[in-house]
Parts: sequence; structure tokens; C-alpha cells
Amino acid sequence: MSTKKEIKPAARVSSNKQDVWSLVNEAAAAAAQGGQSVTNLGQGFFGYNPPKFVLDAAKEVLDRVECNQYSPTRGRPRLLKALSEAYSPFFGRTLDPNTEIVVTTGANEGTLAAFMGFIEEGDEVIVMEPFFDQYIHNIQMAGGKVVYVPLHPPKDGASKTCSSKEWTLDIEEFKSKITPKTKMMIINTPHNPIGKIFTKEELKAITDLAVEHNILIVSDEVYDRLFYTEFTRVATISPEVENLTITVGSGGKTFNATGWRVGWLIGKPHLIKPASVGHTQLCYSSVSPLQEATAIGLEKAESENYWEHSVKTMKHKMDLFNEIWDELGIPYTVPDGGYFVLANFSKLKLPEDYPFPPSVQNRARDFKLCWWFIKELGVAAIPPTEFYTEENAHMAEDYLRFAVCKEDSMLEEAKEKLRKLKPLLEN
Amino acid sequence: MSTKKEIKPAARVSSNKQDVWSLVNEAAAAAAQGGQSVTNLGQGFFGYNPPKFVLDAAKEVLDRVECNQYSPTRGRPRLLKALSEAYSPFFGRTLDPNTEIVVTTGANEGTLAAFMGFIEEGDEVIVMEPFFDQYIHNIQMAGGKVVYVPLHPPKDGASKTCSSKEWTLDIEEFKSKITPKTKMMIINTPHNPIGKIFTKEELKAITDLAVEHNILIVSDEVYDRLFYTEFTRVATISPEVENLTITVGSGGKTFNATGWRVGWLIGKPHLIKPASVGHTQLCYSSVSPLQEATAIGLEKAESENYWEHSVKTMKHKMDLFNEIWDELGIPYTVPDGGYFVLANFSKLKLPEDYPFPPSVQNRARDFKLCWWFIKELGVAAIPPTEFYTEENAHMAEDYLRFAVCKEDSMLEEAKEKLRKLKPLLEN
Repeated sequence: MSTKKEIKPAARVSSNKQDVWSLVNEAAAAAAQGGQSVTNLGQGFFGYNPPKFVLDAAKEVLDRVECNQYSPTRGRPRLLKALSEAYSPFFGRTLDPNTEIVVTTGANEGTLAAFMGFIEEGDEVIVMEPFFDQYIHNIQMAGGKVVYVPLHPPKDGASKTCSSKEWTLDIEEFKSKITPKTKMMIINTPHNPIGKIFTKEELKAITDLAVEHNILIVSDEVYDRLFYTEFTRVATISPEVENLTITVGSGGKTFNATGWRVGWLIGKPHLIKPASVGHTQLCYSSVSPLQEATAIGLEKAESENYWEHSVKTMKHKMDLFNEIWDELGIPYTVPDGGYFVLANFSKLKLPEDYPFPPSVQNRARDFKLCWWFIKELGVAAIPPTEFYTEENAHMAEDYLRFAVCKEDSMLEEAKEKLRKLKPLLEN
Repeated sequence: MSTKKEIKPAARVSSNKQDVWSLVNEAAAAAAQGGQSVTNLGQGFFGYNPPKFVLDAAKEVLDRVECNQYSPTRGRPRLLKALSEAYSPFFGRTLDPNTEIVVTTGANEGTLAAFMGFIEEGDEVIVMEPFFDQYIHNIQMAGGKVVYVPLHPPKDGASKTCSSKEWTLDIEEFKSKITPKTKMMIINTPHNPIGKIFTKEELKAITDLAVEHNILIVSDEVYDRLFYTEFTRVATISPEVENLTITVGSGGKTFNATGWRVGWLIGKPHLIKPASVGHTQLCYSSVSPLQEATAIGLEKAESENYWEHSVKTMKHKMDLFNEIWDELGIPYTVPDGGYFVLANFSKLKLPEDYPFPPSVQNRARDFKLCWWFIKELGVAAIPPTEFYTEENAHMAEDYLRFAVCKEDSMLEEAKEKLRKLKPLLEN
């Protein structure tokens, strides 16, 4: 009889914490069982289609043999060219499509490719809380160690509606996290879930530290076409900063197609080359027909007046939905960009004896809010402490994140359901 | 003045060895400059489109909002169901779509997800040479160590055409590679580039070792719809083996759409769960509209008589192309599956003073053959020693790999060009 070693999954996949997306799904299923219809403003997928000129392009290219086969690992030449033409004006110089851009399998895999390109075992990466949860897995997969620093919520966020500018980084606190092992930092602007756009002054302060300590910057700018105030790209702060910055972009966010998995990285050749090798090693190449369709989308966007249209549409949805908070007297954070809004429910008392399931019972208050909203109101939102360390989760435990990238009718439906809060808020 | 640390790419992306695909492209560009038109039988992409019923499905689903947005991380329900229905008969039991299948971003990312699900720093993975090159990067990304064991070429492969069955594994040699750190092994059947289908007896011998030492098996069966002799799936060897086996499949290989990036893993829940978490951490979810189209493809394949058609078509192409070797007296390996054929050019003397570029000069003889074929004949093929360690490269240095998944007219064009070899082969 041989003494067999046990087959164990790797530590990286062995967390027992239920992820927020399946938790929200579980809650929605429980609600549906109870006869509750759920209006889902949770995950940030669009409730409507890509524009017709992009969909038409996708259908057309499916007839071309080469559009159904492997693309070059760095991306299809037409998309690289279209990206260079679309982004060069923003970067104030001509981006070389062959050395300064790589197409990735969504922004997510692009970010991972950047980490794989530079992180060695034990390197540290500074991440601001709240963070996009995939950052953490992706850094750890590359062997990196995540070092957290919080964005501090508005002091009076529980009592009055605030600007997303009032979520602030304490630059001394940030500085204190830098060690000789700090290899990279992530900046996310426009920010998910806050909707904050970092000002030029804020970016100057952060990137001064990057330049001083030679720290690479991954600038996640996937909401770069959705801003309602001035937007500064990190790489444009100075040539020194550009030498350190890999900018992440997303075709899915740009063209309402989160399921297309087309993203890209932009940066100087010494940054894009390693990230591009990382990308090749991860996925080989990215989805061909939707790369080609995204290229055509970028080529036509200007003449279709798409950029203006998409900002206007999203701003309209944001304003339309947020009326409910004003109506209810619920304070929220007014986003400067993106399609998420954080509302603060410190005023709302949940029933003390409410039967929360174990998966929610031991989490911060926002998880209970989330469950209760789904079960009792039929509105799904995301608890933002999922994007915090345990230590700092208290900062956001009264907030819920709502996605407004949905049909107007769905936003109205959610508002109507949220009106059921009214009697609970009157004291 | 601060003493800045240097910013270095990670070791995993820092190899100086030019990869074979860009090398072949470089050769093709050089040939084109010299006025040579290149018939590309190198990379294994299809020279023709997916079947009309699959393309039509892709176009139709692009109009559905949910088909353009994030899919569930494990895959779209319709595709999971279609996979369960298509594969359950092969596995001799009903596969649970919710726990025994995960959809991945191509078979490549699926394989990586399997490694990420189980490999810890320092775990060993046994890989047979020749190997699919992405295995190596993917194992290393997960922190694993690759342990190589060669498939031995036919003894008289230089002088006569052989069956792919004559490429053999020395089971004692394989056994000698097992250590207490061996966590996984890869089996690839039908095999790329050999076209070998492992017999039931061979699989029994290999998997006996897996069961004895509790070693997980990643069975790369992406050519599982293209076999010209009896094909045994690794997981069907025994229930004990099935408990250890993750089977990798590919929508791209199945439906002539290598650029669609739809793949899957099949296995018992204790294997699929960790791999599925790995997949979620890597890419979040996979491309939605092409998942849905692949589901519809699987649903309709039987009634469209597609399975029979696709085997017949590929076998026809294989036979059509291989006529040239018989005509020239060049020995080759007759494939039992897949769409690659290895031909042996030990008989061909290359000019001694031929001006090979440095990137080729220091590689095994097949790289010189490859360069010369492109430059002088205008036919691109792949040098298989790219898929060997340096130690064992000599085993395949007289071979080139040709892909026959191309239009018949292109195969005829390649044959006509290869006829230029005739005078060089007469002595």
C-alpha cells in the first residue's frame, strides 16, 4: 500500500470567502424564490447593446476568413492603427502602433499582463482602497505582494451628498507605504466604485513619488470616455511619468460590450514589450473578429458623433437615477466619471432580528444592506467593502454601489422600488 | 541625488531566444523582399471559415444584449449545457454542466487555469517532448518546474515513412522522472505536432503511474474531433484515472475558428472547481457572443452532419498534401489525428555556404531548413525543435511540421513549390 500524497488545490484559489458576485446571485435567487423580482444594478454590465455601427462591423467581419483565425499576439494591425489614431491626440504625441500598444483579452488580462511583465516574487505593488478586486488576484499570481492604502471617504458622507473629489488620498500615508521593494503602483481614474477623477494636482503628488523612487505605474483608465469634468491622463503629467506609466484601456467599456474581451495597454516601448510578452504567455492572442470590429468602431466613432453621445447618455442616466437619493434624503457621492454611484445608508436601520444567512452575517454592514435590498426591495447593488481590506472595511460599510449603465426604464423601476425606503427613513 | 533602483522586466518575459512564430514571419518578410511569394503552412490556423451554421449563429446572437455583456465566469449556461450533451456520451456518464465543466478563453487559458488551480511554487509537471510551447510558460507562471521526457522518433524515420504510432514513450524513462514533487503531467492526444494518438495500452501504462503516485493529468485533447483511427480519451481509462484528469477542449479547433478564443475544461468537480477559480482570477470571464455561437454550433453539429464532414475534409487534405512526399521520396510520419504532418529532410543537403541570419545560425538544423524553405521555395513550415529542450533537439532536427488545415488550392500550390526539391534529392 503506497502512502499517497494528498492532491490539494493551490493556495491562490483556496479562499473560503464567497466572492461578491456569487453572493449577489445567491441573494437574487433567494429573492426570486420568495416571489421578488430583482432589478439588477449590481455588476457593471450594460443593459443595452453596442452602437449599431459597431455591431454591423462585427457581423461583417465574421465573413472574413482571417478575422476568425489567430490574430498577431500584439493585436490586429487595424486595431493597433485605430488605437494609435484615437489615442495619440490625448497623449500629445504619435503613438507607434508596433511598439507602444498591445491588444489584450479585456483590460483585466491586460493588467495581469503588465504585472507578469514586471513583477518578481516578493515585489510590492501599492493599491488604493477601494480597489477593483481582480487587481489583487492578478498581483498575487505574478508573485507580488499587495500593499494597501485607503482613499478616505468624505468626513460628512453620512449626512450630506458630496463630490467624489472629497474621497481623498493622504499623500503622507501613501509615502509611508513605499519600501525598497515597491515595484509598481496602480492608479484608477475615473475610479470604480467612487467615480472620482484624480485632479492634476493629486496626480502630480502621487507621480512625484513614483519618479523619485522609480516605481512603475499601472494607470487603469478604462472609463476614459466617460467623464463629466476635466480628466487628466496619468501619462501626460510629465515625460518622466510617461516613462513609468502603462495605461490600461477597454473596448468593452468604450463600446458597451463588456462581454467582448477586447482591451489594450499603451506606453513607451520599454514598458509595452515586457507586458506584451506576458500577454502572449498568458493567452497567446485575443479574440479576432471583435478586435476587428473594435477597430472599425474607433475609426467611425468621431463621424458617428459617438463620443459625445455616449457621455451625454451616461450623464443623463446618472442624473435620472440619482434623483431618487435627493427625493429620499439619502446622501451620495456625485461621480465625476464612470457609471457607478455610491449612496450612503447610515440613516437606514435594518431590523435587528433579520434572518441574514451565514455568508453575510460575518461581513461588514454593507453586505447586510446588500442582502436586505435584494430580498426586501428587489434591487441588487454591490457592497463596496468587498473592495477593502478587513482593516479598512469600516470606511465604506454604510455604502452600496449602483451601476447606472442600464435602460432608463430599469432605472425608473429601481427608483420605484427604492421609494419603499421612505417610511423607514422617517423617524 | 537618489540612487534609483533599475526597472527590470520580470525574468519570465526576458528570454532572448526569438520565438518561432516571429522568426517564421521574419523569414517570410525577407522572402517577400526578394520577390518570393510565401505559401504559409506554418501556424495551425484554418485557411477557411467556420461552417455557415456557426457563423450565422454568431451574427444572430450579436443582436442580443446579454450576449454582448459579461458571461458568468464559469461560462454561459447554454454552452455548458451543450458541452454536457456533446461530451457525456464520450465520457460514459452525464457531465454536470454546473460543476464538471468550465468555459475558458481558448484551450490555452484553460490549460493555464488548470495549472493556476493546482500548482504551488516548486511543484513539478512532467511534459513530453515535443510539447506545445505555451505549456512551458504556463507552468512557469504558476510557479511550477517543468520536467521533460521525450517521445522517441521512429528508428528509421529518416529512411521510410512511418506511422505516428512509432513515436514512442519509454515508460521506464517516464517513471524515472517522477519525484515526490511531481504534481501534474500533461498528455496530448491527438498529439501536436506528431499526429500520434496514444493507444489504450500506452495510456494505461502512463495513467497507472499517475494513479500510483497521485499525479494530476492535464489531457490536452483539442484535436478530439479530428482522428483517423481509434481515439481513447484519457479520462475514460478508469474511474481512478478520471478522478485525476482534467480534459482540455477547444471551440476554435472544433469549428475552424482559432481566433474565437473559446475553450473548456471537463473533469470531476474537485478538479474543475480550483481550475475555475484560477480562470476567474486570470480573465474573469470569456468572450460572450462567441460562446453562445459555439453553443449553437454544438447543438446543430449532429443534424448538420458536421462531425463526419469535418473528419472527412481534414483526412482528404492530409492525403492530398502528403502525396508530394511520396512523389519526392521524402519520408514522413502518417498522422492518426489532427492537422499537422512531420516530414523528414535528412536526405536534403543544404548549401554549406548558405547565408543564414544569426537568429537561425545557432539553432538546430530544422531552423535552417525552415529558413531555406521559406526563402528558396516559398513554403513556410515550423521547425519542431522549438518544442524540444536543447538536450533532445537532435531527435527532431531533420523534421519540419506542415499544417494542412488550408484550402486545397493552397495545398496544391505548396506541392508545386515543393517539387523544386526534386533535383536536389537525386544523387
